[in-house]
Amino acid sequence: MKLTCTQSELNTHLSLVSRVVPSRPSHPVLANVLLKAKSDTQQVSLTGFDLSLGVQTSFNAQVQEEGTLTLPAKLLSDIVSRLPEGEITLEEAEGESVVTLTCASGHYQVRGMSAEEFPELPSIEDTEVIHLPLDALSEGLRGSLFATSSDETKQVLTGVHLTSEAESLEFAATDGHRLAVVQTIPEGATQERQAFHVTVPAKALRELERMMQLNSTGDAIAVRFDQGQLICEWANQRLTSRLLEGQYPNYRQLVPRQFSRQMTADRRLFTSALERIAVLADQKNSIVKLSLDSVKQELVLSVEAQDVGSGREAVPAQISGEDLDIAFNVKYLLEGLKAFNTGEVQMQFNTATSPSILTPLGGLKMTYLVMPVQIRS
Amino acid sequence: MKLTCTQSELNTHLSLVSRVVPSRPSHPVLANVLLKAKSDTQQVSLTGFDLSLGVQTSFNAQVQEEGTLTLPAKLLSDIVSRLPEGEITLEEAEGESVVTLTCASGHYQVRGMSAEEFPELPSIEDTEVIHLPLDALSEGLRGSLFATSSDETKQVLTGVHLTSEAESLEFAATDGHRLAVVQTIPEGATQERQAFHVTVPAKALRELERMMQLNSTGDAIAVRFDQGQLICEWANQRLTSRLLEGQYPNYRQLVPRQFSRQMTADRRLFTSALERIAVLADQKNSIVKLSLDSVKQELVLSVEAQDVGSGREAVPAQISGEDLDIAFNVKYLLEGLKAFNTGEVQMQFNTATSPSILTPLGGLKMTYLVMPVQIRS
Repeated sequence: MKLTCTQSELNTHLSLVSRVVPSRPSHPVLANVLLKAKSDTQQVSLTGFDLSLGVQTSFNAQVQEEGTLTLPAKLLSDIVSRLPEGEITLEEAEGESVVTLTCASGHYQVRGMSAEEFPELPSIEDTEVIHLPLDALSEGLRGSLFATSSDETKQVLTGVHLTSEAESLEFAATDGHRLAVVQTIPEGATQERQAFHVTVPAKALRELERMMQLNSTGDAIAVRFDQGQLICEWANQRLTSRLLEGQYPNYRQLVPRQFSRQMTADRRLFTSALERIAVLADQKNSIVKLSLDSVKQELVLSVEAQDVGSGREAVPAQISGEDLDIAFNVKYLLEGLKAFNTGEVQMQFNTATSPSILTPLGGLKMTYLVMPVQIRS
Repeated sequence: MKLTCTQSELNTHLSLVSRVVPSRPSHPVLANVLLKAKSDTQQVSLTGFDLSLGVQTSFNAQVQEEGTLTLPAKLLSDIVSRLPEGEITLEEAEGESVVTLTCASGHYQVRGMSAEEFPELPSIEDTEVIHLPLDALSEGLRGSLFATSSDETKQVLTGVHLTSEAESLEFAATDGHRLAVVQTIPEGATQERQAFHVTVPAKALRELERMMQLNSTGDAIAVRFDQGQLICEWANQRLTSRLLEGQYPNYRQLVPRQFSRQMTADRRLFTSALERIAVLADQKNSIVKLSLDSVKQELVLSVEAQDVGSGREAVPAQISGEDLDIAFNVKYLLEGLKAFNTGEVQMQFNTATSPSILTPLGGLKMTYLVMPVQIRS
């Protein structure tokens, strides 16, 4: 293998791939990145894979000699990121799995491993390709990922459940205490599309979200999947992930259809008041009490942290329905409010023990359900 | 106690003091900040103290009622930092050690402790005050602090040794492997001054350095000390620290007077080449080999990390004396070079086993001695 490329290209693509390379790999070769240099396309592809999540990316280079090799991902990207801008040559000494990296200021030899041991990324043949617009996908991820469970024993709850129907794509995530559902309507949704529902690990989707932010072409993402795998492809990038097995909860039945009380407030005022209240709430049980005051048209936030202190904030609000005291984990409220992107937020209630719903007014088609916490009044 | 001040003033000064408040205090009251409000001066002072290091700072406020109280430092500064800009009122409920903090958006009650239990910051009477210009002090700290030992069992080596003589102020720090010495000549040094030598804990000096960076008045720092304590005062701020006991090593005798080889190079080129070499060196023993090539007028940096790889960089240099191969811990070289502030750096050598000296050319009057590491050639 022999190729020449720019430091910035190599650095950008290495850092994309290095993120999925496991720091404690189950097999030594998985700590490496797979390099493939092709002379016919004059392209180099890099692959990182932890057996569950895989990322592949390609870029243009002058390939003088084809070849395939794996190199230690962290070491290589630590060196390359510190090199001065300009051309870099990578050359493999024949049959030795050692690459010599030459730049203007010096040269480095890095020992790799044969590419034979590196597992292939999963591929899926003969299934329909679904094209998801970048916007719809990133809105959906932004509004759902935060509500997934981080408890690995909770299986399907560590992922986002995607449901595609005739004209909409729905994202759902729940950890058992709250539920976030986002509906997006992809452009060109009139075309007939295969219906599907899969649960994708949050880790893979976070990586996808990050990669999409770096992808400035704005191309739609081509998605394919079968029983066990999901593959997303766009421009010169590909992400593969295993799917989570198991029945996803029938979350739609959890969302109340009717509410007896409703409150609308400025999202930023509500959020910053909660952030201050959270300082005291975090001293004890993270519980904040919300009180609807329909006479003053105020939402009152309060916290009691015994032996430490107490706090009270009032936020102007439009309130309909009877007054109510209801308590929540402050973290759940804050995480939802931060995923919204609108000026105003609506909150709907029935009783102090039934689920409440937060909605961004005029933004995402998003429903965020939070279970209240029981408090002694 | 009752006072009104701005959120930004209270926030700035709280964050200064909170940094020295211990997270695991030996006595509960030391987790608090001491507030003193005086009506005659219309000033509020805040004090944090861990029994070794103390910081006191004052600011203007409308003091309606004098008083003294301690409040939980972290909690108070977490709340205040999140409050909106504007006026804040602090009021103590009589005899209850509870303060009510009122701002535009709400109010908070925080439980404190009586000020009686809070220990007094040390004071020193009847000693000469030494005025050290801000520049001299911060240059000295920048050039020495990094070389102190972080090993608490090494006693005096965890501090910086300050020596004041007729016309100069000298800072020295060593951890046994390298030694940094900075000489500064304070302005107005012609005036007679008390000679002294003390060893001050690095932790206190790092805090002093940070506080000086925030001090934009440019006032000289008034320094006083006795057998066990050092007190620095300027503007509305005071820092007190216990001194380290024990004999500081006679470091001046360690610095060679003559050298047989000398090298001058661009500091940035040298540093960035070392940073790349460090990536590979860190895989093994952190050792980098420097080779003086007087024919090519090049400094060659190289590293051998068995089973991992190797690297070689060349930096243009003016070299006098015979060629030499000498090895160092790459971290010691890098830390020294980063403390310099000049374009060029000079390095002087005798043999591969005797100490080398790095000097910033045309900058600080600084000497940085590094012991080489023995390598098999």
